[in-house]
Amino acid sequence: MESLKIVKIGSSVLSDPETLKGFLSDFSTLEGKKILVHGGGKHATELAGKLNVKVKMVEGRRITCEDTLDIITMSYAGKINKAIVALLQSMNCNALGLTGADGNSIEARKRPVVDIDYGFVGDVVKVNHSLFSELMEMKIIPVLCAVTHDRKGNLLNTNADTIATEIALGLAHMYDTELFFCSEKSGVLESIDDPDSLIPCLTPEFYSEIKEKDIISDGMIPKLDNCMHALKNNVSKIFIGDHNLLKHGANQFTTIQK
Amino acid sequence: MESLKIVKIGSSVLSDPETLKGFLSDFSTLEGKKILVHGGGKHATELAGKLNVKVKMVEGRRITCEDTLDIITMSYAGKINKAIVALLQSMNCNALGLTGADGNSIEARKRPVVDIDYGFVGDVVKVNHSLFSELMEMKIIPVLCAVTHDRKGNLLNTNADTIATEIALGLAHMYDTELFFCSEKSGVLESIDDPDSLIPCLTPEFYSEIKEKDIISDGMIPKLDNCMHALKNNVSKIFIGDHNLLKHGANQFTTIQK
Repeated sequence: MESLKIVKIGSSVLSDPETLKGFLSDFSTLEGKKILVHGGGKHATELAGKLNVKVKMVEGRRITCEDTLDIITMSYAGKINKAIVALLQSMNCNALGLTGADGNSIEARKRPVVDIDYGFVGDVVKVNHSLFSELMEMKIIPVLCAVTHDRKGNLLNTNADTIATEIALGLAHMYDTELFFCSEKSGVLESIDDPDSLIPCLTPEFYSEIKEKDIISDGMIPKLDNCMHALKNNVSKIFIGDHNLLKHGANQFTTIQK
Repeated sequence: MESLKIVKIGSSVLSDPETLKGFLSDFSTLEGKKILVHGGGKHATELAGKLNVKVKMVEGRRITCEDTLDIITMSYAGKINKAIVALLQSMNCNALGLTGADGNSIEARKRPVVDIDYGFVGDVVKVNHSLFSELMEMKIIPVLCAVTHDRKGNLLNTNADTIATEIALGLAHMYDTELFFCSEKSGVLESIDDPDSLIPCLTPEFYSEIKEKDIISDGMIPKLDNCMHALKNNVSKIFIGDHNLLKHGANQFTTIQK
């Protein structure tokens, strides 16, 4: 099976121009098929501030009203996605930016209202794996932003980690798929306050063990549960680290594998 | 030769949601291969107002400073492009949005400073015709916004009429290419103040004749010169009309052909 690397970057990589350039330069030298996924929460929050659109939160979660959706679309699909694509093009990397609406790459469903109305938030329904594979056969590198659609004309805000994982799940039957999460953390820590407690290799068994012992931070649990779900569904390996994760010889990160 | 329709829409079609929806519905039913090109000056101007970015004009022409380029990228490539793509997807039209940077679809050169520094404005250097034809072979409908790039990492603002014409010129050797310009005008008028003076059919000979007689409005001359250039370079026909141009049985428009 041919290999595929799916790389997700968060705001910590996106918000400093030099960090982003360095990161994209590392990404551009990765061999083989690859896909980049990004969010951009910090830029969207700044833009919302400038436009006087209040960020609405319910129980710690952002609500996507129509104005917020516009901001996310302008920020993620416009400013950030196109800056990344133009930079990658300058590095001889034939990037092409996509939302889930483009080529119907990722179809989602507006989250149904149960207790909370999250607004224009989408849960992924279907990844168009043939579009991704056809683009990659054309030597194109898809660059996905965290916006999907419902095929009824609505764009939807979808978490970038989820998008990266769903693409991996959707393509794992076609490629030997590895998933990279790059954020401000250098990896998974056994103790959140001790940067020296990095876990270099996490297996499902070891994860069950430390999860039971209650030593993984609450914020990390849904992320790691997702990773375990991906491993169970044919994703080969998952790497979690900071903006140096793709650098040759990087040694501060966590590998998750069976 | 297979036929190809390249359709350009301006702010007058884009700014009213119902007009846009009706127009896209007409576009979605067009048979055969097709490409949509859009600008979005009005939305960008509104956004600039909200963000307190002054529109700089020199000799009646907009100057694209860095802030303006950001606004254009957010507006054209983000908000407008994605709204169009999502609407077309809801109409069973497999649209995929592009700037010139995406897949290196349109390479441009930053306009050199002679008397005026236009800032981040690009003149088209090369249309990636194989990308367009490969996407269209995949039954994808490219939706281009008026942003290009220089392959050095810079996005550039490029006139949407120019983009539509350059794509037509770049693909006319592969397809029987027709170009549609949809704006607020119902076509080319012999007398700008008389809506009844519409010219239904304009040949290069007739154009030379009326141009000499000085009865074509100044603003129309560069547009029509471009059309004549396109006809000379294998574009089959050019249609100029308002948002009803694609409607079956529309009878108020100008056809330009040899």
